[in-house]
Amino acid sequence: MSVEAESAPAGGSAATRGSAGAGLRDQVHDAARRARVASRTLGTLTTTVKNRALHAAADAVLAHADAILAANAADLDAARAAGTAEAMLDRLALNPQRIDGIAAGLRQVAGLPDPIGEVLRGRTLPNGLQLRQQRVPLGVVGIVYEGRPNVTVDAFGLTLKSGNAVLLRGSSSAANSNAALVAALRGALAAEGVPEDAVQLLPSADRSSVTHLIQARGLVDVVIPRGGAGLIDAVVRDATVPTIETGVGNCHVYVHSAADIDVAERIILNAKTRRPSVCNAAETLLVDEALADTALPRLVDALSRAGVTVHDNPTEDDLRAEFLSMDIAVATVAGLDAAIEHINTYGTGHTEAIVTTNLEAAQRFTERVDAAAVMVNASTAFTDGEQFGFGAEIGISTQKLHARGPMGLPELTSTKWIVWGDGHTRPA
Amino acid sequence: MSVEAESAPAGGSAATRGSAGAGLRDQVHDAARRARVASRTLGTLTTTVKNRALHAAADAVLAHADAILAANAADLDAARAAGTAEAMLDRLALNPQRIDGIAAGLRQVAGLPDPIGEVLRGRTLPNGLQLRQQRVPLGVVGIVYEGRPNVTVDAFGLTLKSGNAVLLRGSSSAANSNAALVAALRGALAAEGVPEDAVQLLPSADRSSVTHLIQARGLVDVVIPRGGAGLIDAVVRDATVPTIETGVGNCHVYVHSAADIDVAERIILNAKTRRPSVCNAAETLLVDEALADTALPRLVDALSRAGVTVHDNPTEDDLRAEFLSMDIAVATVAGLDAAIEHINTYGTGHTEAIVTTNLEAAQRFTERVDAAAVMVNASTAFTDGEQFGFGAEIGISTQKLHARGPMGLPELTSTKWIVWGDGHTRPA
Repeated sequence: MSVEAESAPAGGSAATRGSAGAGLRDQVHDAARRARVASRTLGTLTTTVKNRALHAAADAVLAHADAILAANAADLDAARAAGTAEAMLDRLALNPQRIDGIAAGLRQVAGLPDPIGEVLRGRTLPNGLQLRQQRVPLGVVGIVYEGRPNVTVDAFGLTLKSGNAVLLRGSSSAANSNAALVAALRGALAAEGVPEDAVQLLPSADRSSVTHLIQARGLVDVVIPRGGAGLIDAVVRDATVPTIETGVGNCHVYVHSAADIDVAERIILNAKTRRPSVCNAAETLLVDEALADTALPRLVDALSRAGVTVHDNPTEDDLRAEFLSMDIAVATVAGLDAAIEHINTYGTGHTEAIVTTNLEAAQRFTERVDAAAVMVNASTAFTDGEQFGFGAEIGISTQKLHARGPMGLPELTSTKWIVWGDGHTRPA
Repeated sequence: MSVEAESAPAGGSAATRGSAGAGLRDQVHDAARRARVASRTLGTLTTTVKNRALHAAADAVLAHADAILAANAADLDAARAAGTAEAMLDRLALNPQRIDGIAAGLRQVAGLPDPIGEVLRGRTLPNGLQLRQQRVPLGVVGIVYEGRPNVTVDAFGLTLKSGNAVLLRGSSSAANSNAALVAALRGALAAEGVPEDAVQLLPSADRSSVTHLIQARGLVDVVIPRGGAGLIDAVVRDATVPTIETGVGNCHVYVHSAADIDVAERIILNAKTRRPSVCNAAETLLVDEALADTALPRLVDALSRAGVTVHDNPTEDDLRAEFLSMDIAVATVAGLDAAIEHINTYGTGHTEAIVTTNLEAAQRFTERVDAAAVMVNASTAFTDGEQFGFGAEIGISTQKLHARGPMGLPELTSTKWIVWGDGHTRPA
């Protein structure tokens, strides 16, 4: 079967159409329906076709670098005029080196194993019926994210490789950059005979397009919010489409009474200061009260010398905070079980670490701490799809359903049971 | 560590306390918090302890059979007085034989493999960090269901074996039966030193206890509705807790132009008439238009003779209906792709079947039909956890996230990454 024969109807992206009469809700739902049509074909593409399309998309991003950088310059000008903070401007900014990185990311996804079609389980039943459970795409995936244009291309690459159509709802601050990137991607798909509605950019001028997306039950299979706690909470609270909560990390490092204090110092400094703005950074240091006069002052001193503001008499708010800055809450706890209790109360279920030389304590901690990742004598900074060997990640799930921890390609799939018989009927 | 030392605080179930002052919301949330405390212990119980508790629970159900049957008689009297239909009374009714079946179900779950602790993936990273992904319980599971007291015990057995605490919100019509069953189960747990808050019955007199349960975000990890389409829609629509949609089945049998008509007749009769009230029963027969003058009249005649009311000029409502009765919609379609399109439009993503002798048609159908289970030359009636060899099922998921199709013990679990290092820090 030729791919072309199955292509979705032609037409611009939802972002570029939008007649005066059509409401925003209709516009989002229309995009979702076009995504569904595209997804029926995407789910049947061979790995070879998908990989070729990913390389073509990388080529197109490079070929359109000038237009993309010009669009990005317009976004940056507008953001500067609006008084946007320097850190946000840095996330928004593209340059030739970052464009190269974005294209390289697509080629890297092309090199990853294709999850679709993998047989997870199978058996022949006593009556001869042949059962197999196969990985299939989720279908239509919505991504809601903030002002980082690289996410636009990363999300496209991972969803295409896993056979899904993606609806991108980026930040209005990156609207021009995203439009230029998506135009390049869609052009590459069209040239490869892959439905260009595999990727559509939703309008971002009005906040309510997020609401329409997350309430398009039956049209959208899953929405993944990527961003700060406020964005994620709002999406999860108002969604009727299934969502995957990602990336809010109030991560702890607990220094057990039997810890090697050199190791503790190394780990807390790395977990706090390596990249304070990311979700796997440590936000609270818990020190066993047995070490209150020994390790505690040394660790506080080391953090202070590294430029960290130590909240050593933490309020309830400090203990709940995801600082994402060079701040840390420090508290003492009355032993292992008190540390576990504290973490299960205040943690967000992302990454939790213990520093100890005691095997029983390490085992009890890993068993009883309720989080996506639990580390023994290792920095919380390791919770990351690349570090875990997934090649790439779409986010880090902090929920328990469907996926937990770094999400790679398999986490963007569902399954289907395929059953072969030869006239089998079930006895009463 | 002794199990007793970790038991949750003593006290009656939420259903039996409920002071005049406490609101229903507080009562449900309080139960959920007690379930969370219990779940911390349940997740660490050995398989041996859980299996012993399941057998003790089976013994207790048998030992309390008189009290359970008396409570059930009271429910039946009230239901009869309220003019409840005979089919509903039959679902509600217990008798010594059914009690034996309920106890046997618990022993069967004791015999199933324990999913908890299974290592799903693992590797040693180039830096020596040791990673493994292990199955862990979901935590606190809510089940919302209708007037079938056996579900009370089935749900308890499966959630206990998978290390979860369960909050049961049954029908008010079965309130006495459920209370008697749960009292027996909790007594058995207490005697075995297992936290009795592993199972709690929520108040059912007021509908709003469902709302409080499905909106207890952060207190409850997942809610599984079991029942008709109305119940499931209401739960999924209003929930802020993640839910798993189950068991609404508008299942189709498509008779392809190259079908063996004897096989088609056998399969459609089985799929429609074996148990018309269950979700895997066929609700629509699609016949290829090439067979309009041959197979079609024969299949309609066979269905009619079997007592099925054939809606052979189906309205849009007929095509969308989950009849759950001896009714079927019959329509012709213009070939394989039209059948796939019809099913992807009207189906509920449960089970879809093709009857054909043509390999290419069978492959295209299994690839392109979007459903939890796709059958080739087999009755839709096979979609069932017992038939699939799972030993037992908590329901049949018709959603794509987390679980799809029959859900056994593994589908009641999440995962956790456990990472062992020896002082590992991540380079900048």
